[in-house]
Amino acid sequence: MTRAGQMLETYPADLGDVDRQKLTQCIEACFECAQTCTACADACLSEQNVAELTKCIRSNLDCADLCDTTGRVLSRHTGYDANLTRTVLEACAAACKSCGDECARHGEMGMQHCQVCAEACRRCEQTCRDLITSL
Amino acid sequence: MTRAGQMLETYPADLGDVDRQKLTQCIEACFECAQTCTACADACLSEQNVAELTKCIRSNLDCADLCDTTGRVLSRHTGYDANLTRTVLEACAAACKSCGDECARHGEMGMQHCQVCAEACRRCEQTCRDLITSL
Amino acid sequence: MTRAGQMLETYPADLGDVDRQKLTQCIEACFECAQTCTACADACLSEQNVAELTKCIRSNLDCADLCDTTGRVLSRHTGYDANLTRTVLEACAAACKSCGDECARHGEMGMQHCQVCAEACRRCEQTCRDLITSL
Amino acid sequence: MTRAGQMLETYPADLGDVDRQKLTQCIEACFECAQTCTACADACLSEQNVAELTKCIRSNLDCADLCDTTGRVLSRHTGYDANLTRTVLEACAAACKSCGDECARHGEMGMQHCQVCAEACRRCEQTCRDLITSL
Repeated sequence: MTRAGQMLETYPADLGDVDRQKLTQCIEACFECAQTCTACADACLSEQNVAELTKCIRSNLDCADLCDTTGRVLSRHTGYDANLTRTVLEACAAACKSCGDECARHGEMGMQHCQVCAEACRRCEQTCRDLITSL
Repeated sequence: MTRAGQMLETYPADLGDVDRQKLTQCIEACFECAQTCTACADACLSEQNVAELTKCIRSNLDCADLCDTTGRVLSRHTGYDANLTRTVLEACAAACKSCGDECARHGEMGMQHCQVCAEACRRCEQTCRDLITSL
Repeated sequence: MTRAGQMLETYPADLGDVDRQKLTQCIEACFECAQTCTACADACLSEQNVAELTKCIRSNLDCADLCDTTGRVLSRHTGYDANLTRTVLEACAAACKSCGDECARHGEMGMQHCQVCAEACRRCEQTCRDLITSL
Repeated sequence: MTRAGQMLETYPADLGDVDRQKLTQCIEACFECAQTCTACADACLSEQNVAELTKCIRSNLDCADLCDTTGRVLSRHTGYDANLTRTVLEACAAACKSCGDECARHGEMGMQHCQVCAEACRRCEQTCRDLITSL
């Protein structure tokens, strides 16, 4: 079991009827996407054609920040607020969609780090939407 | 002029028809509220009745993270995405509303740091809503 | 290969003579520890004896922030600055040592989330020190 | 009094013999510098000669993250750890020095946002060093 899964298992109070598997997957996807987007912004900076990648870098930075915050909010269960959770997940999914689209475009043109990043964004967006549905 | 205002003035490309005053106020309120909520979570931890303040601490931590990310997103103008901006502002306003309500309740019972924090949350929520309206 | 490993592999410029395995392990440990510490602070908040865990919660929050920032700094390679990297790694190792010690104490007394968190902190501290040595 | 100052005044436990003015100034400078560096990275992205500014952008991003984390650590007083505080302040001062030097160079060549950012970095570095001396 991953550390995120272990932390859910050892939470000392009632977690309610949350779908633990979907929650764990979403937390892990958020932290992974935050890392990948941070790295992709930096990889874009080192490309010869950085001037054509400025929108991608900006999307990466926003998405990293949103995923980071969403991963943190989802890691907390005390005083759970379903409305706030949903709103944050929707903002995160929007950032992942936007960044995933931008990165996929560059990935198709051969930029490999953007291809990897697009996959992380798609994965994170999907886990956010799956979790929203299960709330 | 504040540093946030100076950074807007010296941005080298077109800012579009954003309301600069509302944007500056919202950026500043986000960073201020991130600090205040971080400090309020810690002040609650040092209260004798911390066991009654756990929901407040959790709201503080979420609100600090949301305000932090929102302040960062609003500080970027390259490749501006109105939909994402609006979604992030709505999540931030929701976190500020929730934390502000919680803190105001404790503030009325004499907890002064919660009173200060409730004011920061109200202010930040209002600047988010004003900015959404102006988008 | 993990996404963090793939991002290193696809970085478009020269990474210098960095030990890629140690770097990947440290990046992953930082993001994992940021998640674990965020979750442990929240789990402590839900314990009956939260009043005895306030120092632990504070250590968790500091450690989460340090690991988060360190994981981001290590995910960037453009304009690499060895001195800054070393200083940041030392601050992160110090936070992990301090939080790991605190959590281990509670873990020995049966608090399982603190036990899991202590392991994440030990692991992250070790990967930071291994990376410092290899710089 | 600023909100950061009010939060220090209303902290419910003993703050020890910390220099409150130096602490307040450092907290405020950290959050201000985090905002300024985030905005400067984005302003650099929109410059015609972005390809010559990639090291500056990277320094901005690191400095924003370090200042953010340092501002958070300094906003907590519960279970105060002087060694960790000092180590974090030194990492922050190093990031501010590095980013301030880089931005000052571009500021002298007429890049106004870098000039504003250099001032925020110098100010933040100085408040960190003043606080270290007073610990």
